[in-house]
Amino acid sequence: MTGETERFPVLRITEGRRTNIEDVIAKEFSLAITLNDRDLVTLLCSPANLEYLAVGFLSSEGLIRGKGEIKNIILDEERGVIRMETEEDRDFAGRLITSSGGRGTAYYSAVDAQSQIKVKTEISADEVFALVEDFQHRSPIYRATGGVHSAALCNKDGILVFSEDIGRHNAIDKIFGECLLKDISTAERIVITSGRVSSEILLKVAKRSIPIIISISAPTDLAVRLATDLKVTLIGFVRGRRMNVYTEGWRVVAESP
Amino acid sequence: MTGETERFPVLRITEGRRTNIEDVIAKEFSLAITLNDRDLVTLLCSPANLEYLAVGFLSSEGLIRGKGEIKNIILDEERGVIRMETEEDRDFAGRLITSSGGRGTAYYSAVDAQSQIKVKTEISADEVFALVEDFQHRSPIYRATGGVHSAALCNKDGILVFSEDIGRHNAIDKIFGECLLKDISTAERIVITSGRVSSEILLKVAKRSIPIIISISAPTDLAVRLATDLKVTLIGFVRGRRMNVYTEGWRVVAESP
Repeated sequence: MTGETERFPVLRITEGRRTNIEDVIAKEFSLAITLNDRDLVTLLCSPANLEYLAVGFLSSEGLIRGKGEIKNIILDEERGVIRMETEEDRDFAGRLITSSGGRGTAYYSAVDAQSQIKVKTEISADEVFALVEDFQHRSPIYRATGGVHSAALCNKDGILVFSEDIGRHNAIDKIFGECLLKDISTAERIVITSGRVSSEILLKVAKRSIPIIISISAPTDLAVRLATDLKVTLIGFVRGRRMNVYTEGWRVVAESP
Repeated sequence: MTGETERFPVLRITEGRRTNIEDVIAKEFSLAITLNDRDLVTLLCSPANLEYLAVGFLSSEGLIRGKGEIKNIILDEERGVIRMETEEDRDFAGRLITSSGGRGTAYYSAVDAQSQIKVKTEISADEVFALVEDFQHRSPIYRATGGVHSAALCNKDGILVFSEDIGRHNAIDKIFGECLLKDISTAERIVITSGRVSSEILLKVAKRSIPIIISISAPTDLAVRLATDLKVTLIGFVRGRRMNVYTEGWRVVAESP
């Protein structure tokens, strides 16, 4: 954890008092990813598990389909560059820059009957509360800095993979990168995120055949619409012993299934 | 505000109870910006003040320097496209995709002696607390949905321009776009943001000659370093009657100056 935070002198001002203290601040790292010798993207991220981040990012963007397609990963941490070599050279449309002028086309193109998630996975409300409680206790950098997001892949019994990052997207990509490199299946599992669920986050998770997404925070309307279309159970605002289930509420059952 | 939110049926689960309620959710809108007939970027944003967003984005990216350079703004809300025409065609490096493989070069290139902020603007701790209290009460969409960020341009006496958006960057760009279109000066003023302050946010604000940035949330280490180099006063974690001053604490004085 030390590598992801740094101590800084801070002037703390409270009612009528000024104190010089030291505070722990989350580090921000600039990681340039090259794919087959072409500049792909520069991500601002937390400086840990950078291979997971690069692999997860490529996978989320559809640039790699499986571990077998990766020929080489060379991380130069000093220069902030990771060089990825893959079997096939797929087109990169970019998360930010798109060639489409149409509204929302990129987000809805993924929605068809094949991509609907039909698995019967169920979870009890108590299991959701227990997972989220565990999730919130696992976050050392957040507790130290208040400045990072976290994400986890779980099954009903507990957390399987956990990550933290200054970016919402990065935290989730790090999980999927780790799963891909370690051959951990994501299908029929559960994702928890500390961050807001936008359409991009919803799609990123649904593409992995994950039927249940839990957020500590709020969803957007597009995320709710996509979750409806893709038959994903979207849970938000899990706080204490309360939650909002936005879609496919049948998966959240009263008693442990 | 109605246009930026929508009501959805939600299953609320609390300890042993399931209730079908309606909840208000923040809308997410996909806005494609074209610049002089070239596709520039697609932003996921809240569907309000889209002209301010487009102008603020272009200005933050250095693609326009002033209002006089804008020849035309045509918003097609139905299709989610805004067409901007400008006098000059500047290069767009992209916020996400950069041609540089070096670490952090993009972020530090802006730092030189000329860009240091030397104004003597001071603010009292009480004025900071009062501004933040006002800021937090101005946020109707956040109060309704818990799912948006807000930003404000202020002077010591109060809020001059306020905006909300599902994106941290968008909320700030909307403010700067409004300032540019309405000839509101940003120099020697104060920015408040609900979101984390990363290097990108710090640079975006410092470029406007703003000497004081206040965040409800945490900064990253790069933002603190940049604030040190640029002599910007960076305040974080303003909660109730407490704040952390990370840099240039001399601007926060005990008594109202």
